[in-house]
Amino acid sequence: MTDKMKIIEVKQSVFADNDADAEKLRQQLKGEKTFLLNLMSAPGSGKTSVLVQTIDRLKDDIKIGVMEADLDSDVDARTIAERTGVKTIQLHTGGMCHLDADMTRQGVKELETGELDLAVLENVGNLVCPAEFDTGASMNVCILSVPEGHDKPLKYPLMFTVCDAMIINKIDVLDYFDFDLDKVREYAYKRNPDIKIFPVSAKNGEGMDEWCKWLKEQVCKWNS
Amino acid sequence: MTDKMKIIEVKQSVFADNDADAEKLRQQLKGEKTFLLNLMSAPGSGKTSVLVQTIDRLKDDIKIGVMEADLDSDVDARTIAERTGVKTIQLHTGGMCHLDADMTRQGVKELETGELDLAVLENVGNLVCPAEFDTGASMNVCILSVPEGHDKPLKYPLMFTVCDAMIINKIDVLDYFDFDLDKVREYAYKRNPDIKIFPVSAKNGEGMDEWCKWLKEQVCKWNS
Repeated sequence: MTDKMKIIEVKQSVFADNDADAEKLRQQLKGEKTFLLNLMSAPGSGKTSVLVQTIDRLKDDIKIGVMEADLDSDVDARTIAERTGVKTIQLHTGGMCHLDADMTRQGVKELETGELDLAVLENVGNLVCPAEFDTGASMNVCILSVPEGHDKPLKYPLMFTVCDAMIINKIDVLDYFDFDLDKVREYAYKRNPDIKIFPVSAKNGEGMDEWCKWLKEQVCKWNS
Repeated sequence: MTDKMKIIEVKQSVFADNDADAEKLRQQLKGEKTFLLNLMSAPGSGKTSVLVQTIDRLKDDIKIGVMEADLDSDVDARTIAERTGVKTIQLHTGGMCHLDADMTRQGVKELETGELDLAVLENVGNLVCPAEFDTGASMNVCILSVPEGHDKPLKYPLMFTVCDAMIINKIDVLDYFDFDLDKVREYAYKRNPDIKIFPVSAKNGEGMDEWCKWLKEQVCKWNS
């Protein structure tokens, strides 16, 4: 384990009103001038790979830290810490299928977000439960990968409704799957007409500059 | 909508003891000589495609019916009904991230399982929550698809512990992803030393005969 990485076991929350608690955390982070990005997707969509590529492009301009949530294992936190060198906290949820604001706060505290411009929360790989809980993030972003199919905004409506942006990852394998970019846009806009859409490949870097430019703008707006 | 397909809104369960309730349903189905297969995976792993291929291979020998669980939409139920002609029930979970035994029973009742040798429950696309709830199934099977990565048994331990078999789908695209078949076997056996593993491609049919042969044997054993 590198010294950039730490594992904490997050405790189940005692707060009844998660929405109010999330708003409190959001305002605390706003005061600290730290933008909190809540990154969500199904298992295996490439959250960690997208994050590595994103950090590589932005870390010279803004200070970044990462919280990696997982039921178990520290695979992703190790990857982030080793490949990017940024401070990374592994949040073990002990089987919980999502993070809420109080669990996020436990990570935020360990991450010492006051020194950061951008804190990223990589949520549990799950298109259902994480969408139901406000984490206190400044912004929600989901990743849908090409092999999963373009029908996902129809089948997991809430996820695509609560996200400000959708990253379509693994566009390098578009030729090998029956994935219709026009249809996925149509279905996503049906859930959220304002959603921003970024087709990317975390493997070959295609589209990553546009996504990173947009993200940096959001961070700067929030922290100004 | 074809006349082979029906949508029902499943109600949240009132039973406190899901395990006991699941056992009761399992015994009821055993008495009816109906094998209930609980098929689980992340979103987009190919549950429906594997199911279509499976039904095509087995429907002349055994009587099959399908329950498709989804938060919303009837995409999968329509696909199954139209492509295979077997009786299909769409279960709308109203946002719930899993099915339990009582919700499954509501589907079983509509499906009229007494006439069936094999009832398939396609659970909500989610590697976390469905693993926590016994549905009353005779057997649990999960699908992991190649693009998701071979580390999933490390990151979603319970799912691979509770399953009798794991189908590795989309092996037709093995060349385009960093997916290590030896490693995924090692990680899956770590969770469950008795798990059966079937690498398949629902797209080109590779490996489907072995899986179907094994499934048919399990159905015949259960129903004998």
